[in-house]
Amino acid sequence: MQSVAEQRAQFSTMLTRPLPDDVELSATTLGGRPALELRIEAPGTAGTEGATRGGEDVLLYFHGGGFVVGSPRATAHLTVALLRHLDGRAISLDYRLAPEEPFPAAPDDCLAAYLELLESGVDPRRVVIAGDSAGAGLAVVTLLRARDAGSPMPAAAVLFSPWADLTLGGASMRSKVGIDPIFTPTAFEWYSDQYLPDGDRSAPEASPVFADLAGLPPLLIQVGSSELLLDDAVRLAGRAGADEVAVTLEIAPREPHVFQHNDSAEATAALERAGRFLASRLPGDGAPTEAHQA
Amino acid sequence: MQSVAEQRAQFSTMLTRPLPDDVELSATTLGGRPALELRIEAPGTAGTEGATRGGEDVLLYFHGGGFVVGSPRATAHLTVALLRHLDGRAISLDYRLAPEEPFPAAPDDCLAAYLELLESGVDPRRVVIAGDSAGAGLAVVTLLRARDAGSPMPAAAVLFSPWADLTLGGASMRSKVGIDPIFTPTAFEWYSDQYLPDGDRSAPEASPVFADLAGLPPLLIQVGSSELLLDDAVRLAGRAGADEVAVTLEIAPREPHVFQHNDSAEATAALERAGRFLASRLPGDGAPTEAHQA
Repeated sequence: MQSVAEQRAQFSTMLTRPLPDDVELSATTLGGRPALELRIEAPGTAGTEGATRGGEDVLLYFHGGGFVVGSPRATAHLTVALLRHLDGRAISLDYRLAPEEPFPAAPDDCLAAYLELLESGVDPRRVVIAGDSAGAGLAVVTLLRARDAGSPMPAAAVLFSPWADLTLGGASMRSKVGIDPIFTPTAFEWYSDQYLPDGDRSAPEASPVFADLAGLPPLLIQVGSSELLLDDAVRLAGRAGADEVAVTLEIAPREPHVFQHNDSAEATAALERAGRFLASRLPGDGAPTEAHQA
Repeated sequence: MQSVAEQRAQFSTMLTRPLPDDVELSATTLGGRPALELRIEAPGTAGTEGATRGGEDVLLYFHGGGFVVGSPRATAHLTVALLRHLDGRAISLDYRLAPEEPFPAAPDDCLAAYLELLESGVDPRRVVIAGDSAGAGLAVVTLLRARDAGSPMPAAAVLFSPWADLTLGGASMRSKVGIDPIFTPTAFEWYSDQYLPDGDRSAPEASPVFADLAGLPPLLIQVGSSELLLDDAVRLAGRAGADEVAVTLEIAPREPHVFQHNDSAEATAALERAGRFLASRLPGDGAPTEAHQA
């Protein structure tokens, strides 16, 4: 088995893409953690959504990587694809990683980042949250904890292939073995062992498929049908819907985990829908304030 | 308890709406059954979707009513709302009703209607299917049976609050008791008793949540969070996704069964999304042929 350091280097090499020239990256801090701030020189150029809200939208992004690997830069192309539909900036948080810093370090960092954003005067109605894989799970946990703390919710959240059950309880964790082109259940067991070696993996703040999701903002969940994590997305959507959250679930046939990374028509289209979903939930978009504008 | 005749009259009175002046209704037959043909004088006026395909799109609609009540006219406003996004006509089938004609009379009629459409020379790529409640369940069963018969699939299907489990096995059949403003489980038990008094209610052609859904066309499923049938929609989406069908599931918070009937912003928006979804799957729309264009 590779060392954690080797895995981090490989993950970064595999995923990191060059970014278009109009993207400006800068280092910042949020919630006591380093973070990557992303801006686009001519915001809103991907559509008509931006450019009318005065540059104040904030996308808070939580990267994936099984709580062990990954970085804001490695998934910056996903963040940028969403940011093009907004009028403002994105902040992708460099939350603490396991095994050095196990649960609840990462959710603590994510919550602190969201709360500091609000404390800095950003209007929560102009904040949207997104994440992929473990980062999408962290996005849901952050919403839960902010809700429980009495903080206002952001306008919406987008979840790419959320890992939302650390107990690996979804039927697809068995039925998609050999179909998922990236993962085996053993990989998720290993990540779980690093992230939550002791303690209850079915706790809502570890596995939000088991949480009461009432009060969360509108969610768009995208997942591929080939994923071991397919049923994390399906169960999360069902749980959120049962708790009266506006949910849209999109299942893309024969697509793998976080297929939005791929250079494919389906990836481009999925990111486009996700960006439009976020833009439609922000004020000043001109779109009807409906539950599922997509 | 009301007689079946009284229930049918009451259902018709409750749901039937006046239709706009530009809607033309005519009686026809399809698959050996009476049917209502609907046309709009200036097709495609709801958007840019229609008007470029030469008037050949066909929307095949299956009305709801627990397999016992309902009619094409009672749900014509839903059919019309979808038809406005197409360039062609809709046919809403007057399939045989229980208890006089129990299972499999209705699915036999629906399959015969679809097959006769194809035999008449209609291009299946220009056909879309939609239905509500029991009719949405029949839509799925029709797709399954057409697939098993080796017939080509239509371009897409829209399912409003599908009743897809005659065994009433969804968790929401219990958890939403007292929240669902329309139904009790007893009502669904009664409808099941009329429709399938003998035989296996978990058979795939009765309860498509238990079916292999591989090969079905893209599905858009809309459901309200207040429904006893919420988990029929969630499980159907999960099953279809696991079987590599392109699925979009939309859960509308605090909405009841087939809320698209209501005079509300959410109903209007949901019908608009559903119409756009169908249009985007038809040739000549100009939209990318992607899995989840909505």
